[in-house]
Amino acid sequence: MSNFRIGQGVDFHQLVEGRDFWLGGVRVDHHKGALGHSDADVLLHAICDALLGAAALGDIGHHFPDTDAQYKNIDSKLLLARTRELITEKGYAVVNIDATLCLEAPKIKPYVPQMQAIIAQLTGVTIGEVSIKATTTEKLGFVGREEGVVAYASVLLEKAAR
Amino acid sequence: MSNFRIGQGVDFHQLVEGRDFWLGGVRVDHHKGALGHSDADVLLHAICDALLGAAALGDIGHHFPDTDAQYKNIDSKLLLARTRELITEKGYAVVNIDATLCLEAPKIKPYVPQMQAIIAQLTGVTIGEVSIKATTTEKLGFVGREEGVVAYASVLLEKAAR
Amino acid sequence: MSNFRIGQGVDFHQLVEGRDFWLGGVRVDHHKGALGHSDADVLLHAICDALLGAAALGDIGHHFPDTDAQYKNIDSKLLLARTRELITEKGYAVVNIDATLCLEAPKIKPYVPQMQAIIAQLTGVTIGEVSIKATTTEKLGFVGREEGVVAYASVLLEKAAR
Ligand SMILES: [Zn+2]
Ligand SMILES: [Zn+2]
Ligand SMILES: [Zn+2]
Repeated sequence: MSNFRIGQGVDFHQLVEGRDFWLGGVRVDHHKGALGHSDADVLLHAICDALLGAAALGDIGHHFPDTDAQYKNIDSKLLLARTRELITEKGYAVVNIDATLCLEAPKIKPYVPQMQAIIAQLTGVTIGEVSIKATTTEKLGFVGREEGVVAYASVLLEKAAR
Repeated sequence: MSNFRIGQGVDFHQLVEGRDFWLGGVRVDHHKGALGHSDADVLLHAICDALLGAAALGDIGHHFPDTDAQYKNIDSKLLLARTRELITEKGYAVVNIDATLCLEAPKIKPYVPQMQAIIAQLTGVTIGEVSIKATTTEKLGFVGREEGVVAYASVLLEKAAR
Repeated sequence: MSNFRIGQGVDFHQLVEGRDFWLGGVRVDHHKGALGHSDADVLLHAICDALLGAAALGDIGHHFPDTDAQYKNIDSKLLLARTRELITEKGYAVVNIDATLCLEAPKIKPYVPQMQAIIAQLTGVTIGEVSIKATTTEKLGFVGREEGVVAYASVLLEKAAR
């Protein structure tokens, strides 16, 4: 059968005053940040979930429970690094990652190259195999009211050559 | 050209008192259930739509209209079984399925192995080729207010060998 | 490494009185239409973003900024045609496209064959390689209140033979 696997992830966080705003492993300059047990990096979480899902390894809540003190305020780059170890142990390598951030503000375009570099390094691919897109929701819903942020991610994995 | 096809599905249902709550073919213990013409299994519906979409066979509303009395309160496992027949007739086999349930409560983790077994059996794959993930929306939106449930699914199909 | 790439896109637009309603390159008969700088075709935009994402070429906002007068009220079919040029230049061909429209009304099924024909022609595939699905959100959220419309798209690309 096929050596390929696809995965998808979606993650949600509230936006509140007084928190740093981590997106794709980068601290983004904004008057609000995402609320969560870890650093609440919605983009890295969606990517972790897509990678775990593609390899049928459970979800991010299973591997990194938000009731576990060791993950309190943790840098989500560590979660992505651990996720990559899990899929590597299962025999998979990442082919490409494509993700979309849904947020009203700020503009994240200036941060995208840095996000791509971080994610590529942590997942063992090149920058050209990581895509980070962004869209507003045109003022609609909780994203439009700047109460929250959503990220979607899709990934393609391939069984690694032995 | 390629023998692969990808598909994606998304489904929505209201949560109301006085209905059984079917998710992934399993009756989940909860004080609310999903409202719908069929058993309103949001996860199986998203998977059906992803499979139909990958094979360009229309959508679940086309094949199983909610205005048709024969689908009233129907077990969505029958819809997934029929969907698999349709993609098999078109010459496709499932490579893998990855899905995410967005719901505030209850915790679905205890039910996941049973859901995987049901979906694997109905789609002709192994348990290790079916992934069911779950996330809350962190109290945001209609899912956060426990008014509704959403499921996303991605699938990879391959042209079956003859 | 693999010659395949997957991509995903999501787009949002408000629905307002007094605008034409363009979906998948077709003008749909409805008392509201989608608001936006271009013709606000949510389905074509999600597909453009999925194609750009799969090829790691940035996003639709990067290539066709909504602050640029040349895109004011532009036919989004031109954006999809340009997007296809960009992925072709990068060496990729489309394998298949699967998308879902989330809207409460109207029923789009009668328009689907025309949408498929337009999208297939603009992306260099056959009608059987383009899938357009639709779902309501069961009255939930801004889509359920008919304040907005959402589209999701997934695409598979393959490195074109030289
Ligand atoms: Zn998260
Ligand atoms: Zn449904
Ligand atoms: Zn748009």
